[in-house]
Amino acid sequence: MLFERFESEGLFHFSYLIGYGRQAVVIDPRRDCDIFIHVAEKNGFKITDILETHRNEDYVVGSKELSKITKANVWHADSHLDYKYGKPVKDGKKWRIGRLKLQAIHTPGHTLGSMSYLLHDPEGNPWMIFTGDTLFAGDVGRVDLLGLEKAEEMAGMLYDSIFNEILPLGDGVIINPAHGSGSVCGGSIIDRPWTTIGIEKKHNPKLQYTDRREFISKTAKELEKPPYFKMMEKLNLDPPLLGRKPVPDPLTANQFANEVNKSIVLDTRAETDFCIFHIPNSIYIWPHGLSTYAGWFLEYDKPILLLCYEHEVEKIIRYLIRLGFDNIKGYLSGGMHSWLTRGKQIQKTDSIPSKELCEKIDKKESLWILDVRTKEEFEDFGRIPNAHHINLIELPEKIDSIPTDEKIFIYCGSGMRSTLAASILENNGFENITVVMGGIYAWKTNKCPMED
Amino acid sequence: MLFERFESEGLFHFSYLIGYGRQAVVIDPRRDCDIFIHVAEKNGFKITDILETHRNEDYVVGSKELSKITKANVWHADSHLDYKYGKPVKDGKKWRIGRLKLQAIHTPGHTLGSMSYLLHDPEGNPWMIFTGDTLFAGDVGRVDLLGLEKAEEMAGMLYDSIFNEILPLGDGVIINPAHGSGSVCGGSIIDRPWTTIGIEKKHNPKLQYTDRREFISKTAKELEKPPYFKMMEKLNLDPPLLGRKPVPDPLTANQFANEVNKSIVLDTRAETDFCIFHIPNSIYIWPHGLSTYAGWFLEYDKPILLLCYEHEVEKIIRYLIRLGFDNIKGYLSGGMHSWLTRGKQIQKTDSIPSKELCEKIDKKESLWILDVRTKEEFEDFGRIPNAHHINLIELPEKIDSIPTDEKIFIYCGSGMRSTLAASILENNGFENITVVMGGIYAWKTNKCPMED
Amino acid sequence: MLFERFESEGLFHFSYLIGYGRQAVVIDPRRDCDIFIHVAEKNGFKITDILETHRNEDYVVGSKELSKITKANVWHADSHLDYKYGKPVKDGKKWRIGRLKLQAIHTPGHTLGSMSYLLHDPEGNPWMIFTGDTLFAGDVGRVDLLGLEKAEEMAGMLYDSIFNEILPLGDGVIINPAHGSGSVCGGSIIDRPWTTIGIEKKHNPKLQYTDRREFISKTAKELEKPPYFKMMEKLNLDPPLLGRKPVPDPLTANQFANEVNKSIVLDTRAETDFCIFHIPNSIYIWPHGLSTYAGWFLEYDKPILLLCYEHEVEKIIRYLIRLGFDNIKGYLSGGMHSWLTRGKQIQKTDSIPSKELCEKIDKKESLWILDVRTKEEFEDFGRIPNAHHINLIELPEKIDSIPTDEKIFIYCGSGMRSTLAASILENNGFENITVVMGGIYAWKTNKCPMED
Amino acid sequence: MLFERFESEGLFHFSYLIGYGRQAVVIDPRRDCDIFIHVAEKNGFKITDILETHRNEDYVVGSKELSKITKANVWHADSHLDYKYGKPVKDGKKWRIGRLKLQAIHTPGHTLGSMSYLLHDPEGNPWMIFTGDTLFAGDVGRVDLLGLEKAEEMAGMLYDSIFNEILPLGDGVIINPAHGSGSVCGGSIIDRPWTTIGIEKKHNPKLQYTDRREFISKTAKELEKPPYFKMMEKLNLDPPLLGRKPVPDPLTANQFANEVNKSIVLDTRAETDFCIFHIPNSIYIWPHGLSTYAGWFLEYDKPILLLCYEHEVEKIIRYLIRLGFDNIKGYLSGGMHSWLTRGKQIQKTDSIPSKELCEKIDKKESLWILDVRTKEEFEDFGRIPNAHHINLIELPEKIDSIPTDEKIFIYCGSGMRSTLAASILENNGFENITVVMGGIYAWKTNKCPMED
Repeated sequence: MLFERFESEGLFHFSYLIGYGRQAVVIDPRRDCDIFIHVAEKNGFKITDILETHRNEDYVVGSKELSKITKANVWHADSHLDYKYGKPVKDGKKWRIGRLKLQAIHTPGHTLGSMSYLLHDPEGNPWMIFTGDTLFAGDVGRVDLLGLEKAEEMAGMLYDSIFNEILPLGDGVIINPAHGSGSVCGGSIIDRPWTTIGIEKKHNPKLQYTDRREFISKTAKELEKPPYFKMMEKLNLDPPLLGRKPVPDPLTANQFANEVNKSIVLDTRAETDFCIFHIPNSIYIWPHGLSTYAGWFLEYDKPILLLCYEHEVEKIIRYLIRLGFDNIKGYLSGGMHSWLTRGKQIQKTDSIPSKELCEKIDKKESLWILDVRTKEEFEDFGRIPNAHHINLIELPEKIDSIPTDEKIFIYCGSGMRSTLAASILENNGFENITVVMGGIYAWKTNKCPMED
Repeated sequence: MLFERFESEGLFHFSYLIGYGRQAVVIDPRRDCDIFIHVAEKNGFKITDILETHRNEDYVVGSKELSKITKANVWHADSHLDYKYGKPVKDGKKWRIGRLKLQAIHTPGHTLGSMSYLLHDPEGNPWMIFTGDTLFAGDVGRVDLLGLEKAEEMAGMLYDSIFNEILPLGDGVIINPAHGSGSVCGGSIIDRPWTTIGIEKKHNPKLQYTDRREFISKTAKELEKPPYFKMMEKLNLDPPLLGRKPVPDPLTANQFANEVNKSIVLDTRAETDFCIFHIPNSIYIWPHGLSTYAGWFLEYDKPILLLCYEHEVEKIIRYLIRLGFDNIKGYLSGGMHSWLTRGKQIQKTDSIPSKELCEKIDKKESLWILDVRTKEEFEDFGRIPNAHHINLIELPEKIDSIPTDEKIFIYCGSGMRSTLAASILENNGFENITVVMGGIYAWKTNKCPMED
Repeated sequence: MLFERFESEGLFHFSYLIGYGRQAVVIDPRRDCDIFIHVAEKNGFKITDILETHRNEDYVVGSKELSKITKANVWHADSHLDYKYGKPVKDGKKWRIGRLKLQAIHTPGHTLGSMSYLLHDPEGNPWMIFTGDTLFAGDVGRVDLLGLEKAEEMAGMLYDSIFNEILPLGDGVIINPAHGSGSVCGGSIIDRPWTTIGIEKKHNPKLQYTDRREFISKTAKELEKPPYFKMMEKLNLDPPLLGRKPVPDPLTANQFANEVNKSIVLDTRAETDFCIFHIPNSIYIWPHGLSTYAGWFLEYDKPILLLCYEHEVEKIIRYLIRLGFDNIKGYLSGGMHSWLTRGKQIQKTDSIPSKELCEKIDKKESLWILDVRTKEEFEDFGRIPNAHHINLIELPEKIDSIPTDEKIFIYCGSGMRSTLAASILENNGFENITVVMGGIYAWKTNKCPMED
Repeated sequence: MLFERFESEGLFHFSYLIGYGRQAVVIDPRRDCDIFIHVAEKNGFKITDILETHRNEDYVVGSKELSKITKANVWHADSHLDYKYGKPVKDGKKWRIGRLKLQAIHTPGHTLGSMSYLLHDPEGNPWMIFTGDTLFAGDVGRVDLLGLEKAEEMAGMLYDSIFNEILPLGDGVIINPAHGSGSVCGGSIIDRPWTTIGIEKKHNPKLQYTDRREFISKTAKELEKPPYFKMMEKLNLDPPLLGRKPVPDPLTANQFANEVNKSIVLDTRAETDFCIFHIPNSIYIWPHGLSTYAGWFLEYDKPILLLCYEHEVEKIIRYLIRLGFDNIKGYLSGGMHSWLTRGKQIQKTDSIPSKELCEKIDKKESLWILDVRTKEEFEDFGRIPNAHHINLIELPEKIDSIPTDEKIFIYCGSGMRSTLAASILENNGFENITVVMGGIYAWKTNKCPMED
């Protein structure tokens, strides 16, 4: 038997490969799908079927790509949508994988057509359930994708799916969700990488609302919905074929400089490295922030130029294409060192360790401090006294509320979101920006004064 | 968080690496322990503790080896034994791994001092239990290691350990045993590579005996106990350090031929390849049969010469050292092809497809047919009419019951155990041996006559 | 700087990747061209140009494939031919690769338009010459590709190319040919994997014929020309795109059996394994024999079914597609073991160690012995007394000269070509075939009687 | 045949593995010698002999380490020295490697007992010569290791070795030296990674001095001799066994901070990243600078703490142990980000792009500018007007010549040596240091005023 889970790093997304005998199926494959083919081939399996749990909104699904290569059947949940390829899954549909059996269970709530897949072990016992975005470790799927006005209705469906379809399968059944801790698809997913119905029933905070009405009132909320979700929703009905992972050109400083005006410069280096010297008008996003923030701050219709550590080029490309950013022009070969030795234009962003900001406050210096964390973090985890709050993702629309004639000190948890915010502000003409390195963590460690 | 299971191929044994923050522990490491160091290092973890679930009898444990390199503490279960290194685990002993907690639970039965380890998730909830040889998927640990006379007593302890200590932890808790399907440590372990308390409670046949007395009567049985268990029990109190996986010499046909008399020749090629030509006096064991049969048919005090496919040298060496067979002289470079082109002495073993044996029987030829499967297989899965039965592992002691003046046809399931049996018989002077290729499986497929 | 040579195993063919700064060129890429992209990408190079030394006849060139992915320019030698893609190389054409310079030198003889490429080091000194099939270690290119009637004319051109264009570049210049020892493109290439003009001038037997006329008379010979050369010559004007290395299906014994009649069964296992049991009507070719013999004995218009060791599937596929055999249906999952346990039809070929044949001869048994080595081996390296000689590649056309009513003993060097010959004879209805294992090498070692 | 060259990255050192049949030899193995064992094992070779070309002074040789594992014989050149293991090589000593022959040729000059090894191809022709530190591409070995007073005598020997022993072997013979471009063992080695006697005879500047006296006068010079050479010379008579590459501990910011006082903090990040924030009292050396500068600026008797990018930990460790720095305490897990979020003490070094320095000069600001390049670079490649020159390696002894009351601007080629210099100055109490990023290269590109 073959059972393997693949984490798409940066997306916190899980795909699964299940094989028995010579036959294998893949659930929710990612777009850079070589890994599935490779593992199946190495172990002597043929991928015959590809199953989706729902129409994904946070990444480009690899079903069509993988099917093109393997000739495997693609099975769509959410089959009311206008898919340009593949076949619809009906509730109750069964597949045989050697001595294993897999069965579709309609579990709407996150989307209208969400399917979970119940896997039976070789003895025929219910064994594992692939819950997609319906049920996670420590959280449930969001119900606001059709709009806040539909959220209560969807939350009701979700309640029924979980409480009537999934939980009754038995406490011992293993849950294999589509996302782990860190995903944009469930803000409260916890770091329990393997889980079961029994554990979730006992410890998942949302499943403690056993009353349907209470469950609805607690879950029917609007969450952040990055603008790229729309793009994903469209692409996933007929994803463009990738063919092969793009190999970006290594560009000399001169070649890079020539492209800068026509492109977005994406800088993914250490936040400190960005602050000391960067290419003017770059956008800063650290690698693991891409799945969350690329969709907010990059545009699909402009080519991307990369400034990253060279050992990370391949990884960054991978992260970007998982989000559908396929138009990557190239990267700066030799990095900032080569930019500097060629004497090119650079820009600096001031930065101070949070301790020094603390000392400034002690000295009663007048400072305009900006906190770009989420509302929850701002309200619940402590903050610097008199800080102004703008959630990072709302920065573009609220930018006018920031004074242009004061020195702005930006902080977040540790310094990465604040560096991203600084890059946005600079692109909007702000000149007096300072990033607080170490963020609120260092602030706390240094016992600087806090406001609750 | 880091959670990874490592299967020692051929042993069907599981080791576990669990890390959080920068700290990691390993449970029941195998002897070729580079993999743990490599994974820990790559992910930025330091291995601080090595935990054993019991004194193992089926492989050489890697605790001392791994501790030598990492300086990690070794913790022994079965601490009443005279270990030459490491520290004893007490019931209830707790370890912290970053935000995870691990706790020892005394679960005797398989051995007197067996420990299970309960892992709590970062939220503090009971999450996984590492059950060693106490509880498997579809089976429980054997209780006859101290002899049949102690078996009932041990079975009683095992009942208490499982029913009073483990099962009450909750159906949702994930079970991580020390062995998977195929191991000599539990003949009925089933192919359900991940399992939970809930699933075992419902579907493990042994756990259906909820009455203590019935459980004892059903489990207090003597199982096959390979002679090498004694060696393992001794070695595991103070395993010899390996230092580095042995690199066997590639030997020319001449060099190999010179060593043959002083050594055991172990042939691990395809069973067909063995039959057509092999080196006189070889012992045949296929690679995946080594963990089960090397301990029965090889001797620890003789150097081993290998005849294997060259791409498998590294794997075979690995399998052998896991069993403590460290004295591997070398392998025949160029394999049988080189032996033949050097004009060396060869031996043949007759073989026929099972269909042809079937035709002989139809023609009423008089044949002495030997079935070397287990008693259960012989009795329950159908057999060739008039076949004589000797379990492969009893062949040496029952060899006198086989006629020397008749043509012997040996069969098993598919042809591998029968080829091993043939090599044993030839080494004992039998000359008229024929292996039935395809074994009982082909017999059934061809609808040849069977006896129940 | 990046300089790397890639050997296409089984083809004994060399491709080269040369890079400086950020730019790289590839010379004579093989069809499975991922490796060039991977190495260039990993080292931060962009492949800008692909150079061919001549229109190849022994493998499918990867220029188009690689150009499709990298957008690199393809430069054809032999530009009088009707290429469907790429650009022609003119004599003297220069490329710059960072601080390196590369220059085309027209060196006809092997083909009309063969080009050699002279590489200068970063200081501008002549450094290496890429000679394609013009000049090898210990041999020169064959001149009979346009037919024996043109051979003298071509040999004259080759003399001029080597003696007037290449040798004068200086003894210290390093030679990088397109083939190494073992290739069908130069039967006498010797095992000196790196060489120079100075070494060849002194030690290459063909370059000792410094007199033009003598050189012509010694080299204008007809060599074996496998029928697939025609196919390669055609394909290389416009090679079909591969897209991605084919992943063959793992087939059950039943699935495989169903395809046997519509396909060629290719068996690449050990020669001994073939003899004891094989699938009826298979063709036997050992893996390293594929580049030489697949082109003689397989057909392009039939799908191929593979019986090979499973760890070699990927390699065999690679070897086959390099020769343009893209239509590979699948392989037998589980190998012969699975075929036998399913009770499928098998065939055997008798085999004896050469020593036993020797004993038969001593006993004056009447035997029809067939030697399938080349004429040179038959005449110069000793042979079994009274052996009949048919070069393996001429077997199909000379098959009628072999008696059908006698027991045929086939030998070659060591047993592989004779097993291939046996498979051909069996496919032609011969029933009384015995392969002599160990061949003439074992014969000599055992001091059996020989004829000169 | 097996012929492989291994470059020890960072050392620019070459080891060679040569095999034929089943037997292999290694020439000048590096200390982390797994690679030789791995390649030999994978290809079915047994390493029987290890040859040294001379007692190395720039790295710890791996002969003893490799011999411990493989039981191979170690053969020492410079056998007048007091080796604690291995056997002496005599001039003319021969080894057989299957059909290859290897012969020792005494070629003193770099050291008294330097040996070159001449390899014959399978046909018996002189093929390759392994010249150790006697002859490189574009340079010859240094002759000042026994002191300047012996340099002329040694240079004479070197002349005789090269002109009388090596060059007469024939222009076509391939040269395999112990070092490539970048090594401290030959400052003028050029970037021609493969070379021959013919090429060197024509293009090696030193070999143009065919007159013995002229050769001596041109080569008998004193070169930089890093203090660690002494250590290497001692260690290489009896190198400490490594056993296994050290696995350094990942340290939390707290653990790291606790060790800082007892250790040397080595920072190997980008020079920009060092400048913006570093741990107080660190020494900055970029990874590829380690082989040249670790021996000048680190001490053998203090434990090392590493601050490096985490993907480079393994590489940095490798570089350090090649130089005998085995005492590596650990590395800062999470890097500078973790240091900042823990609110630890940091230090900054000012830096400006060279363009801004240029503007300051235009404005006639009074500046104290320090050039830390070599004398040759300072004199021959252009410099900033009025710059003071101190070669980086002489900085500690000339530190008093730098004013403590002025703002010091340090530059080098591109910014790395100047950052290293800045870290040295800071450790000596200087406070007003600014690194010129982009160095003289950017200066030239920006057409800033230069002094010749």
